[in-house]
Amino acid sequence: MLLKGNHWKTIWVESDNESIGVIDQTKLPHKLETKKLNNHQDVFKAIRQMIVRGAPLIGVTGGYGFALGVKEDSSDSAIHECYKLLNSARPTAVNLNWSLKRIYEKIKDINPNERYETAFNEAKKIELEDIEMCSSIGENGKSIIEKISKQKEYLGSKGSVNILTHCNAGWLATVDWGTALAPIYKAYRSGIDMHIWVDETRPRNQGASLTAFELQGEGVPCTVIVDNAGGHLMQHNKVDLVIVGSDRTTKRGDVCNKIGTYLKALAARDCGIPFFVALPVSTIDWELNNGVEEITIENRSDQEVSHISGLTKTGILETVRIIPDGVKSYNPSFDVTPAKLITGLITEKGVCSADYNSLRKLYSS
Amino acid sequence: MLLKGNHWKTIWVESDNESIGVIDQTKLPHKLETKKLNNHQDVFKAIRQMIVRGAPLIGVTGGYGFALGVKEDSSDSAIHECYKLLNSARPTAVNLNWSLKRIYEKIKDINPNERYETAFNEAKKIELEDIEMCSSIGENGKSIIEKISKQKEYLGSKGSVNILTHCNAGWLATVDWGTALAPIYKAYRSGIDMHIWVDETRPRNQGASLTAFELQGEGVPCTVIVDNAGGHLMQHNKVDLVIVGSDRTTKRGDVCNKIGTYLKALAARDCGIPFFVALPVSTIDWELNNGVEEITIENRSDQEVSHISGLTKTGILETVRIIPDGVKSYNPSFDVTPAKLITGLITEKGVCSADYNSLRKLYSS
Repeated sequence: MLLKGNHWKTIWVESDNESIGVIDQTKLPHKLETKKLNNHQDVFKAIRQMIVRGAPLIGVTGGYGFALGVKEDSSDSAIHECYKLLNSARPTAVNLNWSLKRIYEKIKDINPNERYETAFNEAKKIELEDIEMCSSIGENGKSIIEKISKQKEYLGSKGSVNILTHCNAGWLATVDWGTALAPIYKAYRSGIDMHIWVDETRPRNQGASLTAFELQGEGVPCTVIVDNAGGHLMQHNKVDLVIVGSDRTTKRGDVCNKIGTYLKALAARDCGIPFFVALPVSTIDWELNNGVEEITIENRSDQEVSHISGLTKTGILETVRIIPDGVKSYNPSFDVTPAKLITGLITEKGVCSADYNSLRKLYSS
Repeated sequence: MLLKGNHWKTIWVESDNESIGVIDQTKLPHKLETKKLNNHQDVFKAIRQMIVRGAPLIGVTGGYGFALGVKEDSSDSAIHECYKLLNSARPTAVNLNWSLKRIYEKIKDINPNERYETAFNEAKKIELEDIEMCSSIGENGKSIIEKISKQKEYLGSKGSVNILTHCNAGWLATVDWGTALAPIYKAYRSGIDMHIWVDETRPRNQGASLTAFELQGEGVPCTVIVDNAGGHLMQHNKVDLVIVGSDRTTKRGDVCNKIGTYLKALAARDCGIPFFVALPVSTIDWELNNGVEEITIENRSDQEVSHISGLTKTGILETVRIIPDGVKSYNPSFDVTPAKLITGLITEKGVCSADYNSLRKLYSS
């Protein structure tokens, strides 16, 4: 997507064809810097230090890292070690393991001389598949925005289609397009007049930093609000549609997404506003049914609640404590929005209702 | 209430009987400092610079400021000027005008020699009335907490009564006790095992700073959470009761309170958790009915969203920017929770349902 007028992806093969370039996401939104990753150790560090983040992007980066490792030493023992090392960089990111396994399966039984090329091509394939999938989610979601835009026009309601989103499910978490933001980009590029309400998304503020940064780059009009404000905006008809992402989706359509998503879904229902979730098939867990009961929510560091980082007046990145010394904090990082609150799921296969039969039908066709 | 083992109020007459002492709330929660206000100009500045904040406390402080002004010059023209100046310090705080008017009415027609004593006594009376009112709200709300504690015991459920609160409706906003926190203090002092979930309350973080600071001082176990987390906690039975304050209450029981209150009320209803609002009669506007439609919500400075202040590692109070340069933000500061979502109103007169007849009955008896 666009940043300062140029097309960017989060990851690319450098012109030397021997290294990988990435955006250093630890510096966003205040600085746009890139990093060259020359070998699998560089990739390991980039994933661990969250220079790249977002499950799909971590998967793609890990894949290229594996190829770089194989290039250095393609022996049986070396590729096994490389696989193990990269897999340990972020143990909870399911896409990383999936991507490394996929490449490992392709190369383990072939001639070591052919392993690098095969691994590299497979990594490239994973990257292109991710872009393709996000683009399809975008096209499918775009039709919903188009419909709302036409409805507004028909009802004589002036002004942009106002969409609220929570957290960052944009291209910075994938290779390009993103998931929840893909429909927004596709619709905006097709000329629909839009405005995005960006939830800041405490405690890590991925909305205020990454989503706002992405939308600004692409030129989509947007406004950052505190997470508390969405309900009020919905009460006053200032939101036409909510689109969020999903980290895990149950077979009946319950959605586990960044903490606070559930509250926005409740407000949308109370105010009669459509609430959509954009997700790739990889987030669906066909073993799970009732998300609230069955999904264990990860509690992250209390420091994310008690401290916050930003830019000082003199341009220095500083971390400050915002609660009294000695007071505890608690940091559950996701919540579950039950299917009953969800208007529809936007997937790469199409849009469907949030229920088992609809999801099954979509993926069996 | 208690701070570091000593009993404090937010305002007091100094031992010289010629000046007023206040807690400097701009330094909280990181530093506990007091300020001596020697004349009405000092009081004007203290209100304007938010050294004192919270509508009830502003009213009391303004009252004493008026008395100090009258002491300096009790002529007709001087008291009128003093009234006008103080009234302009925070034009939106309804209690300030109410308190100043009340004193002005008492002194305008009496001998200038008697004006200071009369004004001072009236200010003292306003202070004592505020303490008394908050204490009554506390006693009335305590009975709800007691009941829930007994229910939990009866059902064999171990552990504390878990109460969630939003923003700061504590003693720092009044003279002593507070409104929403008064029932918590009364119940805790009576020996009920309790734990408070404190919403940080973006953008000004009055929960993370003031409420957490108050509860810590009084020794009530508490944990700060981001505003996004409450719904998840309610889904998992980690909240037994919600108590919040009110800035304005309509005759049918709609409540205008700090932005984000509505979202917690929705979650409480969805999860079957009692949602109470503690308020003094002074917040009831008998002219208003439908709060969402009739109350104009104040939009505050965007900077409160884009910037945040806290303590650096080296102990310096620093402000940092947390959104990308050039991105807009929007800051509605209150929202309206419709009466249908409210279990009951806790007032100084007793507890009642959130509807017109119940409120009328309470205040006509």
